[in-house]
This record gives sequence, C-alpha cells and structure tokens, in this order.
Amino acid sequence: MHMIDLNCDMGESFGAYRMGRDEELLDYVTSANIACGFHAGDPATMRKTVRLAMEKNVGIGVHPGFQDLVGFGRRDIHISPQEAYDLVLYQIGALYGFVKAEGGTLQHVKPHGALYNMAARNSQLSEAISEAIYKVDPELVLVGLAGSELVKAGEKIGLRSASEVFSDRTYQQDGSLTPRRESNALIKEHDSAISQVIKVVKEGKIRSLQGTDVKIKADTVCIHGDGESALEFARYISEALTDAGIKIAKMADFIKK
Amino acid sequence: MHMIDLNCDMGESFGAYRMGRDEELLDYVTSANIACGFHAGDPATMRKTVRLAMEKNVGIGVHPGFQDLVGFGRRDIHISPQEAYDLVLYQIGALYGFVKAEGGTLQHVKPHGALYNMAARNSQLSEAISEAIYKVDPELVLVGLAGSELVKAGEKIGLRSASEVFSDRTYQQDGSLTPRRESNALIKEHDSAISQVIKVVKEGKIRSLQGTDVKIKADTVCIHGDGESALEFARYISEALTDAGIKIAKMADFIKK
Amino acid sequence: MHMIDLNCDMGESFGAYRMGRDEELLDYVTSANIACGFHAGDPATMRKTVRLAMEKNVGIGVHPGFQDLVGFGRRDIHISPQEAYDLVLYQIGALYGFVKAEGGTLQHVKPHGALYNMAARNSQLSEAISEAIYKVDPELVLVGLAGSELVKAGEKIGLRSASEVFSDRTYQQDGSLTPRRESNALIKEHDSAISQVIKVVKEGKIRSLQGTDVKIKADTVCIHGDGESALEFARYISEALTDAGIKIAKMADFIKK
Amino acid sequence: MHMIDLNCDMGESFGAYRMGRDEELLDYVTSANIACGFHAGDPATMRKTVRLAMEKNVGIGVHPGFQDLVGFGRRDIHISPQEAYDLVLYQIGALYGFVKAEGGTLQHVKPHGALYNMAARNSQLSEAISEAIYKVDPELVLVGLAGSELVKAGEKIGLRSASEVFSDRTYQQDGSLTPRRESNALIKEHDSAISQVIKVVKEGKIRSLQGTDVKIKADTVCIHGDGESALEFARYISEALTDAGIKIAKMADFIKK
Repeated sequence: MHMIDLNCDMGESFGAYRMGRDEELLDYVTSANIACGFHAGDPATMRKTVRLAMEKNVGIGVHPGFQDLVGFGRRDIHISPQEAYDLVLYQIGALYGFVKAEGGTLQHVKPHGALYNMAARNSQLSEAISEAIYKVDPELVLVGLAGSELVKAGEKIGLRSASEVFSDRTYQQDGSLTPRRESNALIKEHDSAISQVIKVVKEGKIRSLQGTDVKIKADTVCIHGDGESALEFARYISEALTDAGIKIAKMADFIKK
Repeated sequence: MHMIDLNCDMGESFGAYRMGRDEELLDYVTSANIACGFHAGDPATMRKTVRLAMEKNVGIGVHPGFQDLVGFGRRDIHISPQEAYDLVLYQIGALYGFVKAEGGTLQHVKPHGALYNMAARNSQLSEAISEAIYKVDPELVLVGLAGSELVKAGEKIGLRSASEVFSDRTYQQDGSLTPRRESNALIKEHDSAISQVIKVVKEGKIRSLQGTDVKIKADTVCIHGDGESALEFARYISEALTDAGIKIAKMADFIKK
Repeated sequence: MHMIDLNCDMGESFGAYRMGRDEELLDYVTSANIACGFHAGDPATMRKTVRLAMEKNVGIGVHPGFQDLVGFGRRDIHISPQEAYDLVLYQIGALYGFVKAEGGTLQHVKPHGALYNMAARNSQLSEAISEAIYKVDPELVLVGLAGSELVKAGEKIGLRSASEVFSDRTYQQDGSLTPRRESNALIKEHDSAISQVIKVVKEGKIRSLQGTDVKIKADTVCIHGDGESALEFARYISEALTDAGIKIAKMADFIKK
Repeated sequence: MHMIDLNCDMGESFGAYRMGRDEELLDYVTSANIACGFHAGDPATMRKTVRLAMEKNVGIGVHPGFQDLVGFGRRDIHISPQEAYDLVLYQIGALYGFVKAEGGTLQHVKPHGALYNMAARNSQLSEAISEAIYKVDPELVLVGLAGSELVKAGEKIGLRSASEVFSDRTYQQDGSLTPRRESNALIKEHDSAISQVIKVVKEGKIRSLQGTDVKIKADTVCIHGDGESALEFARYISEALTDAGIKIAKMADFIKK
C-alpha cells in the first residue's frame, strides 16, 4: 500500500506573539516540526506544542534553525560544519527535555528554513547535521529535501531518512525545485498541488516544468501552517489522499533504514 | 568518613568572549555546573566543556539561569513558577544533548545566580524547578543553598538534594548568608574560609557572625571559577581538606535519596 | 478649552510576527509610543511606524522597555538606576535615528510595561530615566502614570511631563490604580470607560471604587492597540470626547513646562 | 604634510565579559569605532567608551554590525539592502544618544566584520549603508576598505569617505587584500607592517605580493584592539609615523568632501 507522511512546522509562537493554527492542523498532519527557540518558539510554546502533539498522536520532530529570531531563520548565515553540529545538537536536546518530561519520544529532525536549504546543497553541513542527530539518537528520522545532500548524508551515517516533497512548488527536470524568484515556482491551485502529490506517491515521479517526468522519492509532504488557507488545504489534501487509496501515516511507522 | 563535593561554575564563555579557567579548575573540583546559553555559554562552549569534564571524570551538572546574557543571570526577573519550570527544563535538555552525544551522563542541576537566590526563598519557584528536574530524570541531584526552600522542594518531590555551603561567605545565627551589602559578608582570608569548610564538614556547624554555632548541612562547596586567585584557592582548599582527612568526591557518589 | 492627548503603543511587530493595527489606529490617536527593539519592535518596524506616524501627523514617542523580548517587557527586572539610564538612552537614540532620517522630530518618551510600573513607584529609577531623557533632549515630553514618581522626577529635572490616565482601569481613593489581580480592576463597558475620561478631563477627578472623588491630572489617555475591539474603542472614544467639547490634540501642543 | 588617522575597534565588552584595552589604546589612536550592541557592546559599555573617547579627544565612530553576538558579527548573513539600511540606521541612532547626552559629536561610521567585507564587494549593500548614514547626518565620514564599493557608494551619495588600509595584511596587484585563508595573507613583523603604512601614506602605493606597486588611497589605518601585542604595536606605529614626518590626526580634520 502507498504511504505518505504529512508534516507541518509548529510551535512558532514566541512570547506574546502568536503564529500558526497548530491545534487545528494537528488533526490532519502526522508529523510536527517543533521550533526550538532559535528562529522561533520559546520554552512555554515548546511545552504546549509537545503536549498537543502527544494528545493527537502526532510524531514529534525537532525543527532546528539559525539563531536569527528577527529573520525567522530564513536568512543564510555562513556557519562552519562544526557550528551546524553544535546548534542542531543543542536544539534537539532542548526539545528532548520537554518530550521526556511528558513521557513521549522524539521521532524526527527537520532543519528549518535557510539551514534546510543550505544543507540541501552542502554535503559538509549535511554531514555535520547528520552526525549530531546520529550521536544523540540513531533511531531519529532525518527529514530533508528529496534528492538533497542532506538525505544522502543521513543515509551515509546510518540514519533513516525521509525525502520531502512540496505540493505547492514546481520542479525542474533535474529534480530540483524551481527557484522562488521565478514566476512559475508556485502551484497555486489546490487541485494541481494535490495531483502532484498523488502522482509522486503512486508513481515516484513528478511532471517537471519542462514537461518530462522526473523520478522523486516521496516520504513526507510539507503542509504550511500559516496563512488563511492552511487549515483548509490540510483538510482537503488529507481527504484527497485517502480517497486515492494512499495511507497517511507517521514517517517512523514506514521508513526503514 | 567525611565526604564533600567541590563544585564550580563552568562553560561561561560566549562566542568570542572568554571567561573562567575551566580546564585547570577541573583538576580540583568534582562537579561542574555548565552554563546552557541563557545567562552565559553557547553550544560550542557547552560541547567543549562537557568533553573536558568527561576527560577529567568530573560530574556534569546543568546550570540553568535567566535568559539575561547582558546581566549574566544575576538580576532578579519576576517569573511565574510555570516560567521557571519551562526555562529549567529547556536548559537541562540542551545540555543533555551534548552529554548524550559524548556518551556521558548528567549528574546534577544547580540553578544560577538570581534564579538560585530567588528559589532559595520561594517555595513555589523551588517546587516548579524541582518538578522540571524530576520529570526529565528523577536520578538527577538538585543542588541548592543549605537550608533553602530549593533543597526542601527537591526532597519533597523525591530528588536527591545536595546542600551547598560557601567557603567565602559569613553566616547569620539563623543559618542564612550575611547579605552581600553588609561589610562583613565576605571571608577574604583563605585560611578562615578553609577552616569554615572543615568545621562544617566534620561537625555540621558553622560559627555565625553572632558567635554562636549554627547547624548547616554541607554536601558541596562552591569554588569560584573566575578572578585571579580562583585556581590557587581551588588547589589550596583541595589539599587542606585532604590533609584534614576529608574525602573529596562527586556528589552523586555519596548523596542518598 | 479642555484638551486631551490619546496615546497608543505601536511598532510592536517583530520580524515575521505581526502585532497591533497600527495604521488604522493612527487615524484616532495623537501620540504613538514606538517600541525600540528591546521588548518588541525591530529596525524595519521602527522605520515603517515612524513613516506612518509622520504621514498621519501623529506625535512620535519612544517606548523604551526591558531587554526581554520573550516576556514582552512585562516582567519586573531588578535593575540599577544606572542600568535604567543606559537602556532608556540607548532606545531613545535608536528611534531618533529613524526619525531624523525621515525629517521628523521626537515628541515624547513613555516607558513600557514593567519599566513604567516600577518607575511609577521608585524615585531613583524615575530620576535616572528622567536624566537620560533630559540629557539627550530637554524638549522631550515624559509620559508617566498620573501622580507617579516618574511624573515627579520629570518635573524636578525640568522636563515637560504628561500625566497618563487609563480609561479601562478603576482607581482607589488614594489615586492609585486598582491592582490587576483584583476582580474589579477593569472597566469593561465602553460607556463607563468614556465617562471616566470625560469626567477626569473636565473636572480633574475620578470617582474611586470607594465612592469618593479623587483628584487626578489627565494629559493623555492610553488606548490599547491590540485585541479585537481596539480599533472600535479608539473610534468610539474619539467621537465621544469631541462630542463632549473636549479637544483631542498632541501632547506637545498643550503641555507646558 | 602627509596625514593619517589611526582607528581602532572599541567598546566590545558585553555585560560581564571584558574585551579590549580601550582606555590605554585611546592614547594612541585618533578614531574609535564603538560597537553598538548588535555584534558586541551594550548600553553601559557604549556610555563608558563614549566618555573615555571624549576625555582623550578621540573621534567617535559608529561601528554597526550584524545582530549576531555569538558570531561577533564575523559571519556573513544574507540580508537585503533594506535590512542593511535599517540596522545601520538603528545603530547610528543608538550611539548618537550617548554622544548627545555627553555633549559630543559623531565623527564617522565604519561597518564591522562581515558587514564591512560584504559591503566592500556589494554595491547595493554599500548604497543602502551610505544612504542610512547620509540621511541621519550628511557630515559623518564613512570608513571603508580602500578601493571598495563602500567607499565608492559613500562618495556617490555625497559623504566624505575615508579609505582604510591594513598594516598587517598583504595586498594583491589589483589592490585587493590577500584572502586570510592564504598562508602569506598576514604581515607578522612590526617593522614590515609599519614600512607598508609609511610607504602608502607618502607614496600612495603598496608593494603587492606580486612585487609590483599598486596605487592605494590611505586615509586611516586599522589598529587591532585585542591580543597581547595590540598596545605595544599601537605605541610603536604611532612613534614610527611621527618620526617619518607623518602627522597623525582625526580623519574629520583632513578628509574633504
């Protein structure tokens, strides 16, 4: 049976600032990427988000990002592999504290924003990130862009890796995402977005902008947590995938080493 | 046999800023309180300090403080017990990540600076801190001021508690520390400081400023890590205690529930 | 003619986090207290808010707070008068940069949150804050709680001081605000809130919870910027005051030394 | 007469962390680049450093950097020109507050670390930085690497620009600095360093690593503030330049528009 995980960034509120519709989205996604206080999130938000995820039986993931709150972790910062190792390890530990206190377990690690994108292209950063994860817990699943250096580095060190695809982004014939600065980078219609996901799950292929099919591995789909239609889309894709005979499940339940 | 632990704050460097003579002091102390990035410390410093402590077989402790780097965690911040719970849990987890990755174990938790002092007087804060520690790992030792609310709260919830005494502070006849603002708050001569420690370890008493002996429990003595004479004093007290027939050992080795 | 200023906290967004309905509220208030990056706000938000305030001819004020973003500057931090001086001066300067670059002028300074409340009761903090303001620009207006130490310190050093009253808070017969923890601290009905303001502007008196009138000076009324009904209330009080023959004007236009 | 300014980074202490020998170095340099709390420095340190510089009649400069305390502003952060404008303007203002309160004046602005290096190569960043400076005060001097985009952008908008040379760095025949990663990037002998400065001041040329002379404009020389020999070198170069008949003076005293 075809299986897919739906993941969403969560716990991005900070102090008096609210962001995201975490509680409602947890009804649709199977994995939550929880911010750890560097690019977003704070200790209170982490505690609440861990509890909510456990109540709704959603896989709990660490979402480590750059220490750049004002930039929301979206700006490239030129760090060394050692710095990447340290900041990922710190953030895994920080979330682990809350998960352990609540009697839960960590499922996965997905780097955030600029760190995710830099790691996708940079094998040294990816190896450092993978090593941090492996050394703290080799059972954790590493989530990276399908085909990226991050996924490769995770597999190389012996981690389970989850390949992530985007429902709302177009792809190039080499399997890369169309850069956001290009006009046709985004898929705006929900139906097209969902068709792309169903195709990649069932056939392992995405129709590129060049018109040819390109092989892509798809273990998990990124669902956006903010914006007006986030909740609506989550509900919609959840139903459509189920209707198409695809089983939506936590990544840890079906990803093998 | 009389036993005592010697603890010291460590890992207080931050980025390009250096503080403390950690490596050398680790030759004399048995427990290291490692800063976790809130009042001092950063991920790289935490990693290095954990490795050093493990190499020298020193007990590794979490040193959680207020998120107040510019104030070095020394300024009272009026937080709720829930906020105390969250910030302690976060910092325990953060250090745990590095300890786990290095194959070590956490020994203890000692709140830093203003958090330590506020907790000493405030049972609600102390209970929240104790709960955070207990929920993440009930085997951790809680270090608090001898006779404080923090030590009481730790024992109440079922943690092992270590009562801390200060070699360089004078005491009142009710067992409290003489406030720093008073002229005779500090013991400046090394010999007097060491005599106070030997007496409290052997007799369980400290001679108060009022001239009467007051009962104080002493499991661990705080050794300062900064300043010109820190290293010299550490060496000196270490020798003097041994000469007096007192065994210097990690707190986890002799503190019982 | 009776005159009153309406002030509102603004520029409290931070990075990706949005807060407040600044643009719309600027149609009703006469003075904007702009956050300066310590408890809220960031350089981009400061620039935008200064521009908006200038476009709408609203008096621009500095809103300095504690360096406590996660606590939104609402938690008491025990700082020395020197620390208060330094953080207020820093934040005045930071906002001044944007105002100067846009060709505008600073009108006032109103401390935020816990700093405002601590200063209200503490003459030393208030004198330090007043000195910082006076030394950077003696023409700035200092806004403080009516009857507070802050207003007194401002007048003592030679600043123009604006006494602030709250429309939605009840008062005690000694002129102090009923503490928030008490059940009748808040005035929830808009009509009662507005009546209190009209009375204090016209008669210089507020009816205390004890039933007696208490003399209060009222130069400016605090309008809340967040929450569902902020905009509605701003419009409503603005109309009601005008209907009552009270002129709404920038504080700098009518407050004398 | 040949003239040169000697500048040094200062005010880099932060909270309990000490850095630099500011007070002593102020006896030798003519311009101080004062950190503003983003990559280093804090309000108290800014106040003290401004006072010291004024006492010693040293030109006061703003030293804006990335908001990256743990990285000391040395890591490239990919920011937009608008973000550069905002963070430079904020930091100019922040220091201005202290300078104004002390009755002094700002002389110059020199971006710090990674911001300085990124601006040297990037005309858009440089134009944004120059605009921020020009809009807040067109009399400020902009300090940039000799031959850099930053110096060009400053001149283009109408600022006085100071071209900076390094005594301890080697140059390429195109006038660029030899990258630090190369083995011969640094000049370690004091005599060679000083000869390079005397030559560039008198002849407007530096002998490149390729053996040919390259034209370089030299208005100010960077003196390092940290490290064992900083003070010694400052004293040494100061004497050597004077002996060579070069007048050491504040940049504002001789740089024309």
